[in-house]
Amino acid sequence: MNYQKRLLKLRKKIERKKLDAILISQPENRRYLSGYSGADHGIAESSGFLLILRTGPVFLLTDFRFKLQAEQETQDIEVILYPKGVIELLGQLLPDLGVAKLGFESHYTLHSTVAQMSELLGKKGVSLIPAEGLVEDLRIIKDEDEISLLKQSVQLNEKVFEEVYSSFSDYETEIDVAIAIETAMRRYGAERPSFETIVATGANGALPHAVPGTAKLRKNKSLTIDMGLILNGYCSDMTRNFVPNKPTKRYLKLHRIVRQAQRAGMAAIRAGIRGCEADQCARAVIVREGYGDNFGHSLGHGVGLAVHEAPSLSPRSRKKLKAGMIVTVEPGIYIPGWGGIRLENMGVVREEGFENFNQNDIWLDI
Amino acid sequence: MNYQKRLLKLRKKIERKKLDAILISQPENRRYLSGYSGADHGIAESSGFLLILRTGPVFLLTDFRFKLQAEQETQDIEVILYPKGVIELLGQLLPDLGVAKLGFESHYTLHSTVAQMSELLGKKGVSLIPAEGLVEDLRIIKDEDEISLLKQSVQLNEKVFEEVYSSFSDYETEIDVAIAIETAMRRYGAERPSFETIVATGANGALPHAVPGTAKLRKNKSLTIDMGLILNGYCSDMTRNFVPNKPTKRYLKLHRIVRQAQRAGMAAIRAGIRGCEADQCARAVIVREGYGDNFGHSLGHGVGLAVHEAPSLSPRSRKKLKAGMIVTVEPGIYIPGWGGIRLENMGVVREEGFENFNQNDIWLDI
Repeated sequence: MNYQKRLLKLRKKIERKKLDAILISQPENRRYLSGYSGADHGIAESSGFLLILRTGPVFLLTDFRFKLQAEQETQDIEVILYPKGVIELLGQLLPDLGVAKLGFESHYTLHSTVAQMSELLGKKGVSLIPAEGLVEDLRIIKDEDEISLLKQSVQLNEKVFEEVYSSFSDYETEIDVAIAIETAMRRYGAERPSFETIVATGANGALPHAVPGTAKLRKNKSLTIDMGLILNGYCSDMTRNFVPNKPTKRYLKLHRIVRQAQRAGMAAIRAGIRGCEADQCARAVIVREGYGDNFGHSLGHGVGLAVHEAPSLSPRSRKKLKAGMIVTVEPGIYIPGWGGIRLENMGVVREEGFENFNQNDIWLDI
Repeated sequence: MNYQKRLLKLRKKIERKKLDAILISQPENRRYLSGYSGADHGIAESSGFLLILRTGPVFLLTDFRFKLQAEQETQDIEVILYPKGVIELLGQLLPDLGVAKLGFESHYTLHSTVAQMSELLGKKGVSLIPAEGLVEDLRIIKDEDEISLLKQSVQLNEKVFEEVYSSFSDYETEIDVAIAIETAMRRYGAERPSFETIVATGANGALPHAVPGTAKLRKNKSLTIDMGLILNGYCSDMTRNFVPNKPTKRYLKLHRIVRQAQRAGMAAIRAGIRGCEADQCARAVIVREGYGDNFGHSLGHGVGLAVHEAPSLSPRSRKKLKAGMIVTVEPGIYIPGWGGIRLENMGVVREEGFENFNQNDIWLDI
């Protein structure tokens, strides 16, 4: 990856904002700018921060536990440890570096952290300026290298799905299927699942974010599998819905409506269209069939280093899509007590349309 | 769990702070007070908030995706959905409920979220008051029901370790071992691992937070396994270190120093001792042997609904331990290029000493 090019673009933004430096706390932003993949244990236990000066060096501030990894994964970046926390280290570093105005990622910094930083850094003549979404604005458009990595992530995800689907009779419960999926992901070299795998059978499918449990699989019960993995940092995300045995008429009808909505969404997507317009094209199919109230979420979301990122394909997203954005297209119908159906593909927005990364068509057009 | 008793204690704190209500955003706090276990996808994608009035009802605010789960898992709590986000919903609810002073968890709320909330709620006459750690102060002391659940979590974790250890020759790489561990965890009914399982062989052991990779296991290479699971909401955390074949003299020497430090730490712990004193007792053993610079982290941390929580056993933690606190005792020695050794047990602080939950002693006293 061309980190220097990314830093150059960010530095232009830093200059435009009249900042002396910016502190990057958001994990995917950190990785995007440096290659450092240290895992945070939630926002309260960071594995490090990038300190990027408008001109001059880039520092990776971290603690003892991540020193070797930080040094191994980055180039042209000085790793500095903070035995007593990042705020104290910043208090020492910033005055020496001549930083008077420090930007911070207000959308990934806790309110209490800002209060502590303001107090300590204020005494040293450093003021804190909220700077939201600067790196996300870069990340939203993927270059061809990234598009290729995202496609590979989708392809591996499909390989895993197909393997598990073909040995489906081996599994007894939802959790068995989830384990088989996540084991195969890691065996094939994925870093980890990009989110907790959803395997929902029968009525559990009515929960869009169902947690796999000990519910038994039955030949005539439908199954929702929503799965994704991280490969070389980049995420995939796919949902399939099927019935091991012969589906009921009702299942067939709803499945076909969802698939038709998905097709309408994919057909609508191209550079220049608004997120809400793509959502509307797919949603109209479901509304027309009388299930509008059963499709309570957005049509799709962006994917990249994070599995959920901009842009959003929601009824409220007025922003126009641009070439190089990656989105999912995932309409669904959920009926409490009966179950649910969601079908999700992922691909890239091109000038002329949507390039769907998914090759797998098991149970899509039934 | 006695949620009413917990709510009663929290409401006393709310009253003392002169708040009309508090908004609970921290996931473990939410679960502690309500039983709702909805999974957040990071802090920016919450699965819900508790709104607790000083007097009156408790609300669980969430979105469409989590509605059924929220209703199934809670009692005496009204679930309200926010199709347009929690801030807009609060803007509608709070004035009607007569809330003028709303506490929020400043240690688990983003700076940008507070800015948005202040702006919208300010117009409605609601002021926001940072309220940090109110629920954590309750969570830090476990009752006997919780202690029993934590012990069960440790016991299941050991069962998994022993199973994987006994079939050790089946595995080729670090990642194979990690997969076997996490698969067994889920098969035995754990919700999930409490953190990403660490399996580090040879020199990789020098990274305290190593990510399992494709490094091959060798009979004469040492192995660090740091693993934990969540059972009924409660976490376990254990580290073992061993060599499949005969260990070298150097390995034996370092392993015995770490174990001696661990014993010293466990022997020091009892109600009334400071966290830093426990750390010091263990650290002194390692310093005396000349490896003080190779033990760069704290002796231990609290465990409960979160795998890392208060109290801390660090050189800087002046607070006194109390009966009913749960802590890990995990000294380590890390030598870049050679590897590392860490041994971690977990147990409860009692008036008279430390009750170690770990029964497994494989490779502890070699």
